[in-house]
Amino acid sequence: MNELHVTAEPGVPQVLTERALEAPRELVFRAFTEPDLLAQWLGPRAFTMRVERFDLRDGGSWRYVHVDEAGNEYGFHGVFHGEATIDGMVQTFEFEGAPGHVQMDTVTFEEADGVTTVRTNSVFQSVEARDAMVGSGMADGMGQGYERLEELLAKLEANR
Amino acid sequence: MNELHVTAEPGVPQVLTERALEAPRELVFRAFTEPDLLAQWLGPRAFTMRVERFDLRDGGSWRYVHVDEAGNEYGFHGVFHGEATIDGMVQTFEFEGAPGHVQMDTVTFEEADGVTTVRTNSVFQSVEARDAMVGSGMADGMGQGYERLEELLAKLEANR
Repeated sequence: MNELHVTAEPGVPQVLTERALEAPRELVFRAFTEPDLLAQWLGPRAFTMRVERFDLRDGGSWRYVHVDEAGNEYGFHGVFHGEATIDGMVQTFEFEGAPGHVQMDTVTFEEADGVTTVRTNSVFQSVEARDAMVGSGMADGMGQGYERLEELLAKLEANR
Repeated sequence: MNELHVTAEPGVPQVLTERALEAPRELVFRAFTEPDLLAQWLGPRAFTMRVERFDLRDGGSWRYVHVDEAGNEYGFHGVFHGEATIDGMVQTFEFEGAPGHVQMDTVTFEEADGVTTVRTNSVFQSVEARDAMVGSGMADGMGQGYERLEELLAKLEANR
């Protein structure tokens, strides 16, 4: 079974993750860049997701909201730096519950033998902000998201 | 004399700087956010600067070019995350000579007793990219820029 690997070294304001997916990277890239697909997998299972803006171009902004079972809403927003391509995408990311703390995320997609490895690289303004994000259950939420993504990719592959 | 303080710890993909300026922060903020003023001080003395885009709003993009005495051009571009305010601004930054390497810069302006302290916080996708930026003479270029900024601020104060 594929697992999410997370690297968060002490004293370094960065988190690196890696996750293998049994799918071609064209399909994985679509799941990251088409808001209708993104909303079906990003985040923990207990949340539903509403994508309010997703303007995928250099300087385009995005905003999405996670809604928990009690109806609480958690907003996130940022902007895209440069063009998103199948080789990678860069964007800023701010959780609206901690305004003023901004991180920069880089995602890359590498395919070999039918397996696509997704790598994320998040850098934070401080180690404290990084630790807060890790402490909020980031890895657990991402892990559940990737499991949902696997299910979505299997469905998309079956319908091709 | 005010000096530029630079912190670049080994193994950490971040550079922190701090510089005191004998000027009110309103004026310092203008020098950072009005392209006509920015072009008069940002970067080493041996370069002239051409600001090609400076769309100071959430998701707005910027691009400027440094031109050395031999006419060689060095382009830089990025996007603004969130609104720039006198409390601070966040933007991405990419040197076009090293495409695909993106950093995120946060600048804050703090005033006490007529002295404004400018702090910059740059985070990089890797320690290697951080080291390359530091090795390119970043601190020397910034130091010269701040000296030019001091001269500009003195002129602006005299003309108020």
